[in-house]
Amino acid sequence: MNVIDTQSPRERAMRDLTSDTITDAVISTMRDTEDARVAEILESLVRHLHAFVRDVGLTEEEWARGVDFLTRTGQMCTSTRQEFILLSDVLGITMLVDSLSNRRPTETTQNSVLGPFFREDRPHHADAADISGGLPGTPLFFEGRVVNRAGAPVADAAVDVWHSDGDGHYDVEVSGQADPAMRALFRTDETGHFGFRSIRPSSYPIPGDGPVGELLGATGRSLMRPAHVHLLIEAEGFQRVTTMLFPSDDSYLDTDPVFGVKESLITSYDTYEAGAGPCRELTDEPYTVLRHTFVLEPRPADSPG
Amino acid sequence: MNVIDTQSPRERAMRDLTSDTITDAVISTMRDTEDARVAEILESLVRHLHAFVRDVGLTEEEWARGVDFLTRTGQMCTSTRQEFILLSDVLGITMLVDSLSNRRPTETTQNSVLGPFFREDRPHHADAADISGGLPGTPLFFEGRVVNRAGAPVADAAVDVWHSDGDGHYDVEVSGQADPAMRALFRTDETGHFGFRSIRPSSYPIPGDGPVGELLGATGRSLMRPAHVHLLIEAEGFQRVTTMLFPSDDSYLDTDPVFGVKESLITSYDTYEAGAGPCRELTDEPYTVLRHTFVLEPRPADSPG
Repeated sequence: MNVIDTQSPRERAMRDLTSDTITDAVISTMRDTEDARVAEILESLVRHLHAFVRDVGLTEEEWARGVDFLTRTGQMCTSTRQEFILLSDVLGITMLVDSLSNRRPTETTQNSVLGPFFREDRPHHADAADISGGLPGTPLFFEGRVVNRAGAPVADAAVDVWHSDGDGHYDVEVSGQADPAMRALFRTDETGHFGFRSIRPSSYPIPGDGPVGELLGATGRSLMRPAHVHLLIEAEGFQRVTTMLFPSDDSYLDTDPVFGVKESLITSYDTYEAGAGPCRELTDEPYTVLRHTFVLEPRPADSPG
Repeated sequence: MNVIDTQSPRERAMRDLTSDTITDAVISTMRDTEDARVAEILESLVRHLHAFVRDVGLTEEEWARGVDFLTRTGQMCTSTRQEFILLSDVLGITMLVDSLSNRRPTETTQNSVLGPFFREDRPHHADAADISGGLPGTPLFFEGRVVNRAGAPVADAAVDVWHSDGDGHYDVEVSGQADPAMRALFRTDETGHFGFRSIRPSSYPIPGDGPVGELLGATGRSLMRPAHVHLLIEAEGFQRVTTMLFPSDDSYLDTDPVFGVKESLITSYDTYEAGAGPCRELTDEPYTVLRHTFVLEPRPADSPG
C-alpha cells in the first residue's frame, strides 16, 4: 500500500482507530481550534464521554437508546418547556455548575436553581402589593429584608419573586390565566425591606410526561419538589443571588429531584388564625407569614457580578 | 433546626450539597433502579459528566451554551436527518462503540459506520443489475465475493449496497428522485459472488447547516468524507458486517470527520478506457471497476449475531 507511505505519521494515525487510540485521534483533529477555552472544554468532554463508553462497554443497542433519548429530549423543548435544563437539573449538573460558580461564605444567602418558570414580563409592584392575581389559596404575607454582611440595609435592591399556587401550578400553567400572577419585581426601601401578599405555594411534581420522567421512573426516583418561593436579588456592588425558600414542614425536603435544598434556605412558613395580618390587613381565613433576611456578598473588583 | 434531627443520615445527606458531595448524592437517589445494567450505565455517566464539569470549571454561561447546543441538535432531527447520530459520529463515539462491539480478527472484513442513509425500502436485485436508477455519472462495475476465513464461498449471503452519486448526493437528496437508486439488496450465488453496475460515488461534506457544522467550524475541522460504497452483509452462522470501501486515491482519507477509515477498507477504484466492461458490457465512456473479497467471521454459539 504505497498510499500510506506518502502520509505523515500524524495523518496516518487517523486510520484503523481502535478503542485505545480513537480518543487521542479525535482530540488531535481539534488542534486548530481558535478559542483556547473551547479547545479545553471539548478535549475534556471527549475524554470523559469516551471513558464512560469504555467503562461500561456500551453496546450498539444501548447507544441507539441513548441517541433516541437525547433526540426526544430536544424535541420536547418549546418556548415554555426546557427538557434539557430539566435533565441537567435531575442529574445534579445544574447545582454542580452553580456550586462551582457561586462559592460564597456560609453566612451569606446561598444560591439554588433558577428553574424554568422565571419570566421577564412581570409587573413592577410597590411594597405590600397583592401579587396573587386573584387566584384562590391560603393568604401568604411575605416580609423580606436585604442586608450586607455587617447587617446594614441594602436599599434599592431589585428583588424578583415568583412561585406556584396551592396546587403547584405557576401562572403559565393555570388555564385561563393570561396575565402574570404570583410573580413581581420589587425594590427594597431605605431599611432594606420589601414585602407583598400572595397565596401559599405547595410542593409539586416536575413535568413527568417526557424523557426526564422516564428516567426518574426507571430509577425509582420521585418527581416531587418541596414547596418554595423563588427569589432573584440584584443590587449595585453585590453578587447576584438566585435562590428559593422552603417550608420547614415540607415532606419532600430530602428527596428534591433537582438537589436544590440547603439548610439555610429552609424556613418557617408560620400559620396563623384568621384575623389581622402582619401589616394589619384583615383576613377571614387562616394565613401564612414568611419572614426572611437575605445577606449579600460584595462583588469582587473587576467582576461582572 | 429540629427538622434535621428526625432524619436519617442518608436523608440528611441530600441538603447543602457541594461540588464535593453532589456526585455521590445523585447516584444515591438511583439506588432503587430495578435494572442493574441501567444503574451501572447511569452511575458511570453521572460520574463522568460531573468530573467533566469539575475538571474544566464549567461556568453558568458555558452551561447555557451547552444546553442550547443540545436542544438545537434534537430539534434538527427529522425522519431523514439524525443530527445526534452525526454528533456521535464526529466525536468518535460511534466508531468507539463499534470497536468495542465488533472485535474481529484483522484477517476478516472490518466494520465501519452505518451512517444515516440506509433505507429499508430498497429493491432486491438479481446479479449484475444496473442500480443507478438512470442517474448520470461515471459507470461503476462492482464485483464482490463473500468467503469464510478458510476462503470457502459463502452462498446466499444478503448483501446490502448503498452509495452517493458523483456530486456526493444519495437518492433521498437528489431532487426529483422519488424511487430508490444507487441502493439494492443482493444475494450471493454458489461461488459467493455478487455484482452490479452503478455510478461512481464521490467524496462529499456531511451536513454542515446544523449544530454539528458549527462544532466542526469552531474546531477547524473539515466536513469532507472520502468517497465510499456502503455494504451490510448478513449470512447464516456468521457475524454481521457493516462496512464501506474507500478509493485509494481519495484526498480525504486522513481527515474523515467520522473516523471510519481503515487500511483494509481502502481499495483500488480502477479506471479503464471506454470499451468492454468486466462482464463484456459495452460502455462509450471511461468506467471504474471495484473488486473486493469480504471475509466473514463465524458467529459464536449462543450469540444473536
